[in-house]
Amino acid sequence: MIQDKNEQRTQLSDLGEFGLIDHLTKNFSIKNKTTIKSIGDDAAVLDFKDKQVVVSTDLLVEGIHFDLSYMPLKHLGYKAVVVNLSDVYAMNANASQITVSIAVSNRFPLEALEELYAGIETASKIYNIDVVGGDTTSSTSGLLISITAIGNINRSDTVYRNGAKPNDLLVVTGDIGAAYMGLQVLEREKQVFNVNPNNQPDLDAYTYIIERQLKPEARRDIVSLLKDLKVKPTAMIDISDGLSSEVLHLCKHSEVGCDLYENKIPLDPQVISTCEEFKIDSTTIALNGGEDYELLMTIRQEDYPKIKANPNFTVIGYIKQAKEGAHLITRENTKIPIKAQGWNGLKNQ
Amino acid sequence: MIQDKNEQRTQLSDLGEFGLIDHLTKNFSIKNKTTIKSIGDDAAVLDFKDKQVVVSTDLLVEGIHFDLSYMPLKHLGYKAVVVNLSDVYAMNANASQITVSIAVSNRFPLEALEELYAGIETASKIYNIDVVGGDTTSSTSGLLISITAIGNINRSDTVYRNGAKPNDLLVVTGDIGAAYMGLQVLEREKQVFNVNPNNQPDLDAYTYIIERQLKPEARRDIVSLLKDLKVKPTAMIDISDGLSSEVLHLCKHSEVGCDLYENKIPLDPQVISTCEEFKIDSTTIALNGGEDYELLMTIRQEDYPKIKANPNFTVIGYIKQAKEGAHLITRENTKIPIKAQGWNGLKNQ
Repeated sequence: MIQDKNEQRTQLSDLGEFGLIDHLTKNFSIKNKTTIKSIGDDAAVLDFKDKQVVVSTDLLVEGIHFDLSYMPLKHLGYKAVVVNLSDVYAMNANASQITVSIAVSNRFPLEALEELYAGIETASKIYNIDVVGGDTTSSTSGLLISITAIGNINRSDTVYRNGAKPNDLLVVTGDIGAAYMGLQVLEREKQVFNVNPNNQPDLDAYTYIIERQLKPEARRDIVSLLKDLKVKPTAMIDISDGLSSEVLHLCKHSEVGCDLYENKIPLDPQVISTCEEFKIDSTTIALNGGEDYELLMTIRQEDYPKIKANPNFTVIGYIKQAKEGAHLITRENTKIPIKAQGWNGLKNQ
Repeated sequence: MIQDKNEQRTQLSDLGEFGLIDHLTKNFSIKNKTTIKSIGDDAAVLDFKDKQVVVSTDLLVEGIHFDLSYMPLKHLGYKAVVVNLSDVYAMNANASQITVSIAVSNRFPLEALEELYAGIETASKIYNIDVVGGDTTSSTSGLLISITAIGNINRSDTVYRNGAKPNDLLVVTGDIGAAYMGLQVLEREKQVFNVNPNNQPDLDAYTYIIERQLKPEARRDIVSLLKDLKVKPTAMIDISDGLSSEVLHLCKHSEVGCDLYENKIPLDPQVISTCEEFKIDSTTIALNGGEDYELLMTIRQEDYPKIKANPNFTVIGYIKQAKEGAHLITRENTKIPIKAQGWNGLKNQ
């Protein structure tokens, strides 16, 4: 009734997630003075006079974003919150409220949702945020979680993706690649379990990387640390889709290029050993793995002394002119163009 | 792996939508001074110094909230926005931004999503709001839309559900029951179409009620009208679940009772004639139909002269002491306790 079968059909997967959003929203215009930053950053920024309001939203779908065969519901609730807060922190803002909406099929008993909400509550306590609204409804299949996070920030403190300038330092927090390798281990254990349900897995060698996958943390501490250190990044983004994808986002929005040094990428020893075990290149994982929820930022050269002794920060490269492009400088000192191969929700199905 | 089969299983349908939200969030506490009103009203209110921020969120699931066999996607996009804005207006606030997240299965081509977003864009223009964020992902089945609406309001103007006092007048905007009867007509036409696809339906007699179902409007005009008339309602709520359900919400939150007069309920002539045709009692439809998106409010007796000549408002009853209960006064002048029988997303599956 609503679809003309002779119409041109463009597959969603042809556009990818970002292309689709860009495409669908390209005709939207800003009509309110309160809208400072709309679609195109980690979060929207709204100016309600005294403070800017930061709003970010995410949708998590069973079978697409999570697999309940190894993801406990409590962890899922926790992670769903953290993933959203990460976007607020990436604006250099303080997260203060969330709304949580869920759609569930009849397959889930109340106790399952209690577990889910226990995780949400735990995250809310740890990150000091209030759950201020939501919606609960049935779904025809599986579980779906939609969370909107709201934060606030002094106008002059907000950090966008578009402020990076040539010669700025490219800095990443923590270490990366662990969440993806944790997922590989869990997927392998699931296969083993399917073959032999009595097999007891020994996961001691993978505790860090599995925790990074099942119970990631958002870098709230970095926002206050930057304040204490009196460093305001020129640009910032959270690493949800993999380092290469986020570096390209940051360069595109800032209209700059960059050199990223392979030997500077911070990797946990468990990532290195697990990559060896799986016979995967650890740089590939760091660049394309995703779900790290670390922050990628650019800072002015003169701010380097303030961060250099701090183990939370690693300088991984430099911002260049746009015309020079974005490159990985390998250990062998060859220059390879950076390509985004991060996780893509629409292609993965 | 996560479910112990010996655990107690409580069916979600036993709790109903509101019971489930209450149950799941009962241990959540407020930790930020910026949180003025959390779960329990049409929208959350956050105080960011100069203005209060109003946030509301809704989740619409295919096969649960809408049926694409008679709901054009453009109308669906429009309605999804309007439904959310209605909650913001019910706080007496100005809606200014929304975020839109969608999950879609591969069944939908790009053109279908363009239609959906065209409806969202149209609503955004008409209601003067900005789409400031969102998420787009795949689903394993069907279409799901999650919208968060954000509004703002001067602190002293905010209207909650809990301010109704005995002797206040119970007032409703517009007319009610039409959206539900529109749905009945559409469902009947779908059955006819299934039997004989060549049948051309003549829907001229139902244009108003079908439009109320497929393309409802939110009462933004009422918020500015109340301002012009210098009337601040003592309590307000939007009618999404049916008049009886909303009257009971309002009475419960305000700790009052009420008398609602059957002969005062505003009905459109098409609702009356269609109810006769379907052999349904029109009062039952008005009380339990839902999806009207009109506003139900209570106002002080002294404000009555300001609204009495205005066709947008109908006084349908009085607020009483809580101990007197909530009753419908029938045309035969008998008193019947009001019961909520509104649409229930979790029971309907």
